[in-house]
Amino acid sequence: MESSKPLYRSAATAIRPPESALYEAARRHLDNLTKPPGSLGRLEDLAAQLYAVRGGKTPLDVDPARIYTIAGDHGVAGPDGPGVSPFPQDVTRQMVLNFLSGGAAVNAIANSVGAQHRVVDAGCLGGPFPEHEHLVQRKVAEGTANFLDGPAMSREQCEAALDLGVSLARESAADGVRTLMTGEMGIGNTTPSTALYCAYHGLDPVRMTGPGAGLNAEGVSRKAQVIQKALAEHADVVSAQDPVDILAALGGYEIAALAGLIIGGAAEGMIVVVDGFISTAALCAAARIAPDVRFFVMVSHASAEPGHRGAVESLGLAPLLDLGMRLGEGTGAALALPLYRAAGAVFQEMATFDSAGVSRS
Amino acid sequence: MESSKPLYRSAATAIRPPESALYEAARRHLDNLTKPPGSLGRLEDLAAQLYAVRGGKTPLDVDPARIYTIAGDHGVAGPDGPGVSPFPQDVTRQMVLNFLSGGAAVNAIANSVGAQHRVVDAGCLGGPFPEHEHLVQRKVAEGTANFLDGPAMSREQCEAALDLGVSLARESAADGVRTLMTGEMGIGNTTPSTALYCAYHGLDPVRMTGPGAGLNAEGVSRKAQVIQKALAEHADVVSAQDPVDILAALGGYEIAALAGLIIGGAAEGMIVVVDGFISTAALCAAARIAPDVRFFVMVSHASAEPGHRGAVESLGLAPLLDLGMRLGEGTGAALALPLYRAAGAVFQEMATFDSAGVSRS
Repeated sequence: MESSKPLYRSAATAIRPPESALYEAARRHLDNLTKPPGSLGRLEDLAAQLYAVRGGKTPLDVDPARIYTIAGDHGVAGPDGPGVSPFPQDVTRQMVLNFLSGGAAVNAIANSVGAQHRVVDAGCLGGPFPEHEHLVQRKVAEGTANFLDGPAMSREQCEAALDLGVSLARESAADGVRTLMTGEMGIGNTTPSTALYCAYHGLDPVRMTGPGAGLNAEGVSRKAQVIQKALAEHADVVSAQDPVDILAALGGYEIAALAGLIIGGAAEGMIVVVDGFISTAALCAAARIAPDVRFFVMVSHASAEPGHRGAVESLGLAPLLDLGMRLGEGTGAALALPLYRAAGAVFQEMATFDSAGVSRS
Repeated sequence: MESSKPLYRSAATAIRPPESALYEAARRHLDNLTKPPGSLGRLEDLAAQLYAVRGGKTPLDVDPARIYTIAGDHGVAGPDGPGVSPFPQDVTRQMVLNFLSGGAAVNAIANSVGAQHRVVDAGCLGGPFPEHEHLVQRKVAEGTANFLDGPAMSREQCEAALDLGVSLARESAADGVRTLMTGEMGIGNTTPSTALYCAYHGLDPVRMTGPGAGLNAEGVSRKAQVIQKALAEHADVVSAQDPVDILAALGGYEIAALAGLIIGGAAEGMIVVVDGFISTAALCAAARIAPDVRFFVMVSHASAEPGHRGAVESLGLAPLLDLGMRLGEGTGAALALPLYRAAGAVFQEMATFDSAGVSRS
């Protein structure tokens, strides 16, 4: 039955890559503006991307812009697990409450840059949260299973999380949102993210594993062993390279929902600004499911997590900022928003050499 | 007579480095906020700098913030000169008019980030400009002399330009401005800037010389020879290492006024966000005249001009953004403003582990 087709599959099919002529038209316009050609560097790339993604239609306003901080818990980070985070697992839930009361870094930064903020429970432990106007409660399950003992999620659970992300993108479009930003919270989630990088891109777990929220050297070494074990446990799935099966085996609810948000945002023709280490793992999954998402995304920053830059390069992308950040939540994505806003303003508001009476070189 | 002492000398003497205990207090506060310690990277450095510069007093608001785009012409870029820019010298004046009619990149970006913008004629050719509420007309002279034939400015002219910059900072403080951003316009001004880097830091003119607004390889080679000749012409001044004499011999009116703005801003206890290649040359001069300016400044971005990063490192600093920009005007400085704003918001608005009931690692 057509109606039982997962949303993320229809969204993936609905993505329309911008026409390449639009990038050329954007460059011609930018080269006519009163500045040496190319002298605004990556700001001009952002402007050209905005113009192309919008189908050559102005205005290029990026507002309203919305950050989704999607939360989930991880079996591997549980009290009986191997110890992959310096923080207890309760902190996922405590931080969701902190997001809702406005006390987290992403709240301060979202306010500061003028972005909307929504919190999503995709798979937190501990039952429902109190209702809140900025909380989306669509828990797929109470945390993932420990991926050392089997798949983190069933394929159906993983698809439900992907569909949750797509539905968030659709609801944003219906609300008039023009730009999406990804963010996440989930104690232990650099571990599944690192496993996903290795599984999708054949990267080395030892090189890719970092301290996350603050492990010491011994902890990093233990975490790398955990990731190696998980990759061995799921070696058949990894070698088959079905992107959803890999995501189900090694990922998490917030990661799958973020992959869906990226696919859904691209299907809606929106720019999706990707946050840090975990969000980029979601981008890897999204790009395997729907390669054309690459026209719509930007990796906002290089995480301080050591494997991140290489993972971004594996995607053929380059991070926009490099501020030594490693918090997640959407904090890095939010900081990229003013750059897109400035890029749109440059494209729309600058005078041309002719209109301003400025001589050319 | 005390009244004849240049403003920039009194401003240099008035700079009070923040107490080092304030940086420690800022770090203690940041480490109590609901995030892994240090996980916001350079944003935490900006917050600590803001807190220390403000003497440990909140609020840490950075607004109102004001960009000064200071303009001047250069004898070496004249029609009978050696050809150091692909643009004719008239463009300095044309661009000042473009700034005033709101059509330049810095206008679009200043609006986009919510900064005030002022244009200053410190030494443009062609007489006065029409009056404009955002134009400060305090021309020291009609362009510099060609530094291949003698000093670009007399010491008195250079001091007048330094004092102009200090007076701009004082007027900004009187207007309630909390943050200053530097910018400039002056056809040919990467040439004197490169000469200043070489003179102050002993850097190699061939390695330091780049294409500026768009010279080809032959032009870059010719420009490097011009800079070598200028350094030879003023070898005695360079070896004597009086910072104002070097600035007078090799600099320009907009560069000296920017150095004064940096010194004056520091004396007023303001953060001064430094733009790109030319503004950083002004910072080199300011830091030689008044080394304590270093506590108050931030180099906003790494210019695409090849020598810039090395010059910034010579100052013991690291650029905040790296977007391949090479326009000047204050465009890069303006893009750093949202990062300071976010840093202040993080410091002031985030919950602590205790207040939010979040467990520590």
